[in-house]
Amino acid sequence: MRQILVIGAGKSTSVLINYLKNRSEEENLKLTIGDIDLKQAKKISGDHPNCTAVQLDVFNKEDRRAAIKAADIVISMLPARFHIEAARDCIKFKKNLVTASYVSKEMKALDAEVKQNGLIFMNEIGVDPGLDHMSAMKVIDRIRDQGGKLLLFESFTGGLVAPESDTNLWNYKFTWNPRNVVVAGQGGVAEFIQEGKYKYIPYHRLFRRTEFLYVEGYGRFEGYANRNSLDYRSIYGLEDILTLYRGTIRRVGFSRAWNMFVQLGMTDDTYKLQNSETMSYRDFVNSFLPYSPTDSVELKLRHNLKIDQDDIMWDKLVELDLFNDHKKLGIKDATPAQALQRILEEKWTLAEEDKDMIVMYHKFGYEINGERKQIDSTMVHIGKDQTQTAMAKTVGLPLAIATLAILNKKITTPGVQIPITREVYEPILQELEVYGITFKEKETEYLGYNPFGEVGN
Amino acid sequence: MRQILVIGAGKSTSVLINYLKNRSEEENLKLTIGDIDLKQAKKISGDHPNCTAVQLDVFNKEDRRAAIKAADIVISMLPARFHIEAARDCIKFKKNLVTASYVSKEMKALDAEVKQNGLIFMNEIGVDPGLDHMSAMKVIDRIRDQGGKLLLFESFTGGLVAPESDTNLWNYKFTWNPRNVVVAGQGGVAEFIQEGKYKYIPYHRLFRRTEFLYVEGYGRFEGYANRNSLDYRSIYGLEDILTLYRGTIRRVGFSRAWNMFVQLGMTDDTYKLQNSETMSYRDFVNSFLPYSPTDSVELKLRHNLKIDQDDIMWDKLVELDLFNDHKKLGIKDATPAQALQRILEEKWTLAEEDKDMIVMYHKFGYEINGERKQIDSTMVHIGKDQTQTAMAKTVGLPLAIATLAILNKKITTPGVQIPITREVYEPILQELEVYGITFKEKETEYLGYNPFGEVGN
Repeated sequence: MRQILVIGAGKSTSVLINYLKNRSEEENLKLTIGDIDLKQAKKISGDHPNCTAVQLDVFNKEDRRAAIKAADIVISMLPARFHIEAARDCIKFKKNLVTASYVSKEMKALDAEVKQNGLIFMNEIGVDPGLDHMSAMKVIDRIRDQGGKLLLFESFTGGLVAPESDTNLWNYKFTWNPRNVVVAGQGGVAEFIQEGKYKYIPYHRLFRRTEFLYVEGYGRFEGYANRNSLDYRSIYGLEDILTLYRGTIRRVGFSRAWNMFVQLGMTDDTYKLQNSETMSYRDFVNSFLPYSPTDSVELKLRHNLKIDQDDIMWDKLVELDLFNDHKKLGIKDATPAQALQRILEEKWTLAEEDKDMIVMYHKFGYEINGERKQIDSTMVHIGKDQTQTAMAKTVGLPLAIATLAILNKKITTPGVQIPITREVYEPILQELEVYGITFKEKETEYLGYNPFGEVGN
Repeated sequence: MRQILVIGAGKSTSVLINYLKNRSEEENLKLTIGDIDLKQAKKISGDHPNCTAVQLDVFNKEDRRAAIKAADIVISMLPARFHIEAARDCIKFKKNLVTASYVSKEMKALDAEVKQNGLIFMNEIGVDPGLDHMSAMKVIDRIRDQGGKLLLFESFTGGLVAPESDTNLWNYKFTWNPRNVVVAGQGGVAEFIQEGKYKYIPYHRLFRRTEFLYVEGYGRFEGYANRNSLDYRSIYGLEDILTLYRGTIRRVGFSRAWNMFVQLGMTDDTYKLQNSETMSYRDFVNSFLPYSPTDSVELKLRHNLKIDQDDIMWDKLVELDLFNDHKKLGIKDATPAQALQRILEEKWTLAEEDKDMIVMYHKFGYEINGERKQIDSTMVHIGKDQTQTAMAKTVGLPLAIATLAILNKKITTPGVQIPITREVYEPILQELEVYGITFKEKETEYLGYNPFGEVGN
């Protein structure tokens, strides 16, 4: 039996675990699911004969080492900052490691040692990062094989609510960590390159510089810029590319409305509100508006944001019950972002029968034999239910397939890595198609951002 | 002879030094001016018989201790973060200390020791902080003496260009550290209280929430909020006050125009621009605007900021030569804030004959015998020339007068302190009047922010 240790048994691990359980007989797998909360580990493990739940505190060195020593491969589903101790033990006991997290500096620093020991530390193999890497590199490699030169690469991903469950004016519900949505885009400028020109968008303008995306059968979406687009030049080997832009997908109109919160200062996570526990939703809104003895909070807000009362923006705010004077925040020492999250969770939490949706959109502009072309590659995946969500599937399946591929020596190149080599992405993308995770490609004439030759800039 | 050691001989120390030189005969003073740059120390010291220049590196422990040991009182004119070593030595050798800087945590922590040794560490005794404390506490104490209860305290200070030297569309020139002007308001939310309601202004809205101020003979000004208004509740003993607001004074229209830079992201000091050294002013502007193959930088900016070409805002930008494609930033690894400072310094540097101006405006709302009243106290001081600037005078004279008052045992209460007690502010304010630094008071009916009783809020 091959031993797989899964550290961290969050809700999102169910698809990963089910895949491995289902293969456990034919593949000779024995799964151990370790979580600091034994109950949760048991819930995920169920009573499958090849699956055991154990209580595991990753900060308890002895327990952690014993568990890792007993495994053949380790999957860490912990938050990114907790991987490193497990990673060091994996080197010590010569075990392979799989995570869905971005490669941290500390993780990267282990590369030489990992290679010396002939180990594979596969990271960023979820959906974003993960599926985005794989699906992009597949097309990039093909274009290069044909002798093409990449001019433009744009890539967008979004976790959204499925059309059939899309029941509010924001066309949005929380399908993943709400906190990440509330603070999205903070902590640094969005920097990218367009037609060879570096561009910078400060946070307070981020949600007003969106780009439209059309996906056949699903309609229009919009994308706002991620912070780290330029990192992908070295990652994907696109050092000379003229346009490189990564973004987050929302339904059209979301960003314009979200910008109201940004403008008011409600997404700030750097200071605590006075008396936040007893603050009503209305008080919260009012604390960002000038004092007036005569004007209502409603009018002050409309004036401040320059919106009319028949503007859909206004309806979006009213839908959130933002002006309610009776509902209290009920959080001690809340930051504005935490307060806003509380208000949004009341309205944006998925209902039992709601489904989620993952949308991915890549654009590849390139030149081949003197001709400029463009390929648009799109993927939409809708969740089955609240357990088999699109998010859990697009994160869990790549993780599971990669784990098995490493165990079965289909992936053999050692090192701290991400899934950008053919050896890795080809078998995984192929198997994902079986699960309905497929990309549609469309070739168009390349227009880029400069169809008529440079006039202005 | 009483020995005074002045550490740090910046340009702004000239008024301070001249005051002490002029008093040196009658007061038996011997001045030592220490600076890491001996030339600069010599320039400030001149060849006055009671004044010596020495080379002094404050980080050289031996030299620093020798200099402090030889003094009777120490004036530290170094940047705030460099005071603490000198302060510790002052305790060691039982010397009094005077600075114009905000009391740091480290400085505050010395209070018990300073008191045990019967020493006086007087801080925040320049103009802002300094003159603002003294002139405000004088009125606050008087109102309290009469049995009044403070309802409102607003206080504004600005370093501006004098009306006779006010020659650009911004009505502004750099009269102090330009960097502080460019990054003003960053690093935290502006928090204050109005009629008992806490209010928060995020940085990107700060320059759109101004308040007008009228000063007889000088016309209208505007104030934008400082970050730390609430700190003054405990400092001034105004714990229960309904309205507390501190701000910075500019000429009307400055903030609205400055907001253009904030909106574009040009005041950001947290990241470095790519290729900043060879970037033209025009490139710099363009990096904050969307790419377009056809539209000019000018049109993109006007569209982005929604300004017409006959808007004075537009003229203000043109005046700065912001769209020049030939002028290069010439700074390696510049942040946007550093780049903007470079551009502004070209236009906003004081000419040889230019004069500066300090404006201070306090509002005190209070209740006495069932009646609500308000006192507005204003001060305008205009510099004489480029050495005897209003800034150097309003900083240097309080420092110098306090130093002498401590030497002459007119100020005797020990401890780490700021000038908010009568013992300190009364003699200093009185002597400042001799130098033309005077406040005008005007009594009005108190309207506050809620003249008609609370309806909205």
